[in-house]
Amino acid sequence: MRSPRPRGASPTNDLPPGGPRDGLALGIDLGATKVAAVVLDRKGRVVRHSGRFLHGNDGPGPVLDVLLRAARTCWPAGTRPPPVVGISVAAQVERGTGRVLHAPNLRWRNVDLGRQVARALGAPVRVLNDGRAAAFAEWKLGAGVGSSDLFYLALGTGVGGSAVVGGQLLEGARNAAGEVGHLVVVSGGRRCHCPGRGCFEAYVGGWGVADRAREAIRTDPRAGRGLLARSGALAAVRAEDVFARAREGDPLARALVRATDQYLADGAVSVVNAFNPSRLVVGGGMLTGRPEFVAVIRRAIRTRCQPPAATASVVSARLGEDAPAIGAAAWARQFVPG
Amino acid sequence: MRSPRPRGASPTNDLPPGGPRDGLALGIDLGATKVAAVVLDRKGRVVRHSGRFLHGNDGPGPVLDVLLRAARTCWPAGTRPPPVVGISVAAQVERGTGRVLHAPNLRWRNVDLGRQVARALGAPVRVLNDGRAAAFAEWKLGAGVGSSDLFYLALGTGVGGSAVVGGQLLEGARNAAGEVGHLVVVSGGRRCHCPGRGCFEAYVGGWGVADRAREAIRTDPRAGRGLLARSGALAAVRAEDVFARAREGDPLARALVRATDQYLADGAVSVVNAFNPSRLVVGGGMLTGRPEFVAVIRRAIRTRCQPPAATASVVSARLGEDAPAIGAAAWARQFVPG
Repeated sequence: MRSPRPRGASPTNDLPPGGPRDGLALGIDLGATKVAAVVLDRKGRVVRHSGRFLHGNDGPGPVLDVLLRAARTCWPAGTRPPPVVGISVAAQVERGTGRVLHAPNLRWRNVDLGRQVARALGAPVRVLNDGRAAAFAEWKLGAGVGSSDLFYLALGTGVGGSAVVGGQLLEGARNAAGEVGHLVVVSGGRRCHCPGRGCFEAYVGGWGVADRAREAIRTDPRAGRGLLARSGALAAVRAEDVFARAREGDPLARALVRATDQYLADGAVSVVNAFNPSRLVVGGGMLTGRPEFVAVIRRAIRTRCQPPAATASVVSARLGEDAPAIGAAAWARQFVPG
Repeated sequence: MRSPRPRGASPTNDLPPGGPRDGLALGIDLGATKVAAVVLDRKGRVVRHSGRFLHGNDGPGPVLDVLLRAARTCWPAGTRPPPVVGISVAAQVERGTGRVLHAPNLRWRNVDLGRQVARALGAPVRVLNDGRAAAFAEWKLGAGVGSSDLFYLALGTGVGGSAVVGGQLLEGARNAAGEVGHLVVVSGGRRCHCPGRGCFEAYVGGWGVADRAREAIRTDPRAGRGLLARSGALAAVRAEDVFARAREGDPLARALVRATDQYLADGAVSVVNAFNPSRLVVGGGMLTGRPEFVAVIRRAIRTRCQPPAATASVVSARLGEDAPAIGAAAWARQFVPG
């Protein structure tokens, strides 16, 4: 009996978790609306996948129930517990303890997620931020393989990132290094969801693009008619609509996309000048609507960065939406002795 | 026979380099116009100081001669060579080899500085970038003591920086991490000396402030009269003149300083959000003209950064202009076994 039902459950092979456990790791990605779990084998292959479980974002108790159901789809209760579990969560996570200090999108504060899951599954659990987890996955198993200095830039509803420097995931004093969505790219510019103004994310994140589009429609309703018609209502305008209308030649949408390209270039140049990665891995849902972003960044890095930084290669992320779960499993496995 | 003569040579005590050598290190700071050398003892105290030797910026050969004269003021030829030598240089330095890849202000490319000095002094030599050296000095012996995640922000003619993360100086793929002078703070803004536009340094570095002041005077010669009179000629306007006139109440200069405060706040917020240091150490010559910059940054970090980043403390650098030489010595000593 499980509810909500998983969508797209598809174990990629039939390796029973009751079989050889050595080198396996369970990875769980806890997002604002859904959970997914994977089992990773020693070689980093996904050998089981829970599919996506939706949750109601109704507090730690109910969400934890859904998380455990997803986990048990991959690793049934009654079998020997997994050697290690990694959890990726869109949150600021306390280093060492796995405590979720603040998860704005889940509306959690101070939830002892690691310990609760460890007790329920009878296994050691490690928790990390989802951007960090995706970066680790791409670094170890995706587009970053072979690089020891890379930056993973996540272009989604928000803009995030994580740096690998000298073969280490950068953490920072409060485990928040790499939050490049809040680089200021427009001095005195738009209000952000953070306490700042003019942030990279407020121009280039999904919500930022949508806000800018709504403002443009309000300012020039005539020019905005086509975009408005596509979205249905002003409040319903999304970044994807802007990209789609731009492809159809709509002048207002095209102007918005051109401006977004410029802000994206500004932010990416800042990231690469500041962190000097050998490789910039670009991922996140925004690339679905505008895959050209990768080329925009590549050109900007080459022409606008300082000479030692301008040599960074720019590549698309490879692991798609499972990257956080995969990264959590791979990262947690590091802490298993032997 | 040495020429140019050192200015302000003042060994702080008389420890003879022919005496106990254990734990001593020679540090040399090579700048665009001058060289200074220090001997550091085991406890990080400056036990000898060469004073400043001016050089003519006339190519590696002559400059190296001046560098060796400065070194020998601290550590005479004929005595046993120093256990280790560190050189700080305003350049991109190749990791491991000590080769100066590119020093724009010295107009050097591919100079094997480390090896040449090692041969001349008969001692092992390590070379690092001057911003990196100053950061290391402040971290180990100055305003950063006790912190393992700090950022050193250098506000001088240019704007530079260096990060210590998890107890390591961040290097990056090409040894250029921390070059935050080229964060974009004004999308599409002023041309920089680098290939970019809108850079932090182009607004807040000494040259950027001077350029902005000249432009303001040209735009409104009437409002610019006072500032122009102070500097003598448009080409002679410097950042210090702007700060001095602002203190005297000149409206144009005050407007320039207010704008500089805002750009400085933007850049500092970006740095702290991106690197998440526990401490931001602010140094560089610009603080002489405007010590208020430290308070401006402190307020911006507290009110505009993301919550986990906003807890960073903001402090003034302590070691002054000797920081690079001190840092080079302390850093080089790490590589001496035992």
